[in-house]
Amino acid sequence: MSPALQRSETDSASPVGRTADVDAYLDANRERVLAELLDLLRIPSVSTDPQRAGDVARAADFVAEALRRAGLEAEVHPTAGHPVVTAASPPVAGAPTVVIYGHYDVQPAEPLEAWATPPFEPLDVDGRIVGRGASDDKGQFFAHVKAVEALRDLDGGLPLNVRFVIEGEEEIGSPNLASFLREHRAELAADVALVSDGAMVAPETPTITYGLRGLTYLTVRVRTAGRDLHSGAYGGGVANPLGALASMLAGLKGADGRIAVAGFYDDVVELDDAERERLAAVPFDRDAFMADAGIAATPGEAGYGLLERLWARPTLDVHGLGGGFVGEGTKTVIPAEGVAKLSCRLVAKQDPERIAQLLEAHLRRSAPEGVAVDVAVEGGGEPALTPLDHPAVAATARALEAVWGRPAVFARSGGSIPVVVELQRVLGAVPVLLDMGLEDDRLHAPNEKFEVRNYLQGIRASAVTLRTLAAALGTR
Amino acid sequence: MSPALQRSETDSASPVGRTADVDAYLDANRERVLAELLDLLRIPSVSTDPQRAGDVARAADFVAEALRRAGLEAEVHPTAGHPVVTAASPPVAGAPTVVIYGHYDVQPAEPLEAWATPPFEPLDVDGRIVGRGASDDKGQFFAHVKAVEALRDLDGGLPLNVRFVIEGEEEIGSPNLASFLREHRAELAADVALVSDGAMVAPETPTITYGLRGLTYLTVRVRTAGRDLHSGAYGGGVANPLGALASMLAGLKGADGRIAVAGFYDDVVELDDAERERLAAVPFDRDAFMADAGIAATPGEAGYGLLERLWARPTLDVHGLGGGFVGEGTKTVIPAEGVAKLSCRLVAKQDPERIAQLLEAHLRRSAPEGVAVDVAVEGGGEPALTPLDHPAVAATARALEAVWGRPAVFARSGGSIPVVVELQRVLGAVPVLLDMGLEDDRLHAPNEKFEVRNYLQGIRASAVTLRTLAAALGTR
Repeated sequence: MSPALQRSETDSASPVGRTADVDAYLDANRERVLAELLDLLRIPSVSTDPQRAGDVARAADFVAEALRRAGLEAEVHPTAGHPVVTAASPPVAGAPTVVIYGHYDVQPAEPLEAWATPPFEPLDVDGRIVGRGASDDKGQFFAHVKAVEALRDLDGGLPLNVRFVIEGEEEIGSPNLASFLREHRAELAADVALVSDGAMVAPETPTITYGLRGLTYLTVRVRTAGRDLHSGAYGGGVANPLGALASMLAGLKGADGRIAVAGFYDDVVELDDAERERLAAVPFDRDAFMADAGIAATPGEAGYGLLERLWARPTLDVHGLGGGFVGEGTKTVIPAEGVAKLSCRLVAKQDPERIAQLLEAHLRRSAPEGVAVDVAVEGGGEPALTPLDHPAVAATARALEAVWGRPAVFARSGGSIPVVVELQRVLGAVPVLLDMGLEDDRLHAPNEKFEVRNYLQGIRASAVTLRTLAAALGTR
Repeated sequence: MSPALQRSETDSASPVGRTADVDAYLDANRERVLAELLDLLRIPSVSTDPQRAGDVARAADFVAEALRRAGLEAEVHPTAGHPVVTAASPPVAGAPTVVIYGHYDVQPAEPLEAWATPPFEPLDVDGRIVGRGASDDKGQFFAHVKAVEALRDLDGGLPLNVRFVIEGEEEIGSPNLASFLREHRAELAADVALVSDGAMVAPETPTITYGLRGLTYLTVRVRTAGRDLHSGAYGGGVANPLGALASMLAGLKGADGRIAVAGFYDDVVELDDAERERLAAVPFDRDAFMADAGIAATPGEAGYGLLERLWARPTLDVHGLGGGFVGEGTKTVIPAEGVAKLSCRLVAKQDPERIAQLLEAHLRRSAPEGVAVDVAVEGGGEPALTPLDHPAVAATARALEAVWGRPAVFARSGGSIPVVVELQRVLGAVPVLLDMGLEDDRLHAPNEKFEVRNYLQGIRASAVTLRTLAAALGTR
């Protein structure tokens, strides 16, 4: 057994938890690993936009080539949608297997005019990498690629078996990933799934996230007439689709901030006192949260604290409203139709499909006379919880403490990574969420960024975690 | 006194009510008067679009030149916005004066993809003139221009004094017309104001409209955050501007279809039994109304019939909703802001400014915590009622009966022509609304049209009305 595979139960200075060699490696390779990430960010791999399909494919090829350069066998797999990139390290007989998940697709950059710099002309400026996908998720999964490359160079190989699954459809709900994982479960089966697609609870605070919210996303279209109508000639005698949409949406939530859909909370696992205490202990700067978001209040469901509402309670948000005339000036039109996009973040053990059905039924029941309703379920994902007593969790925490110099915090996240549920179910892997980003990374919004420090610490954390996992899980 | 100025109290075959010469004239000039209207429709004079300012000016020049060719002295007057075109006929001493109002600006053509033919490449096809502005209002005011030209050619001159006021800002609320009328009241003072900017109650049914609704139009912007936020990271802890907008709009109306704004109905003149009977007698085909609009129901304020709601009751309609992401696919964003456009149609004696204040106060009161509200009043107009016992009304009715061969119907309209109030107030003119369009002309919507028959009958009606008005009002 090589030194890297020795078991460490002690401290961050143990051989497997050492960081000095990785530090030195990154000092020597800093510019290169940064430049390679910028190259990846230049590819506008917007998965929701059909016109970007070629760019998405180009990003997949880029990722596969980077994995090959890191010493892995990589493959680009076509799917019914965008490709999945997989890779496998040279086999280490008897060693555990870690599957590293990430996604190379990104959100749309709109509204473009709100970006200080072009979203797909990334910059490394003032210690920040600015561009669409910098933190979500190109920067984070690419840190793992660079970590594997570093271990190959430093140790002459990896101390365990590594698989990569880097998909191109996370931002559109991963419609093809579950079936892909099922088809490739033999090659991808793993003991641990490392996922980095989230934010540390605070700067310089290494974080392992043990709870993720699920999601169900709906597009609601209402139609009242065969064509747009003049509000002078028709106003008072016809249904207004936008007024109808407003009243239907308003009826989804009560004045107490609770979702007013019958059955919505039936399957929610309520917080117990222990978890409320644990959440209360998480370092969370409400003032910084508000200042960063530019908000004047933190309203929400009555009876729950802010962090509880953000991490451990379900929500309903309207993402878009459209219809009629919203340009400069006035147009006295009664449009024929309107559209709303909305979603619910879900918590264990809510089922996305059931919630979608409840929402749809509620919306249909509340549609005023003369309003035709069409509801499309755009996909979703189940909530997830990680068992905190698994040795991989402790091993990851040790690595994070070694890299950051302070103990890791265990947190939940308000976000959704539907694939985490699939990695657990299909591949049998215990998900370990090793967050590298920061809360103010502006995910899904203009001027997304990823701190250079977080990128480099992410590479260190990944490299050391692979060592501590190998030691903790030992031979099988 | 010329034969044309003789008073007629009898029937449509009287000398002043004769139509045969006008018919013959139009038979000879049909293609020319049609082609000239198409030329006007080709100019995309969209007053609300700053990029179309040059086209709007070009339309003003076109109208002035047409008036000159009809034998009038025409002038294009710059304003703070788009120009007003005025014209005066050669003076007829002692004769009454008629001012003819119209507007040469048009609504935006969007959504362009919904037009079967390009909106500014008008066609005369199957008896219909198709193009933006065909009925609202280029086709209607241009019929008066061609009528004056016809009388000049047929009678060697007009039997009274005619003024034209053709503005270019009706579709944006006529912000400069009232002050223009005040500045030019000496030249424009008139006994009667002829206005053709509306629809007959049914095909082949000559109509004089005696009531118009007013309008107040608001743009409501809500803002909750300094930037767009990720619904996973922030959902449950921040206000959602689109959800807030939905609940604020929903709160403006009750389940009974009544507007739930305190004081809104205070100044409404309720319908008395006589008017309810008169409205019930108006030929109105509810099935055709529904089929034309493509609607399945005619919901509205409880306690009032459909025609009462369309013509004589105030309304509230949402014209546009915007905010966040409504493209294909999904985007889990909590946008920073949202916008709604809405207006109320008003009836006598509601005051547009007071109603705007009531709406704004209601919206502000109902804004949820953390939501900043900005309300802009985009303009409006007062409702109007015409005194039916004025001799000009009877004279116009006689002319319409002569042209159409059946008695004129007296109707109200749900639409708004704010300038009618100003013509009455500033110029001292009795407004007579001589509608030429049809209800299915698709005003403000794609595929706007004007029947060729209605255009030609409009020219006839205008010419004969000028004769009957001269006879009815006599010398001053």
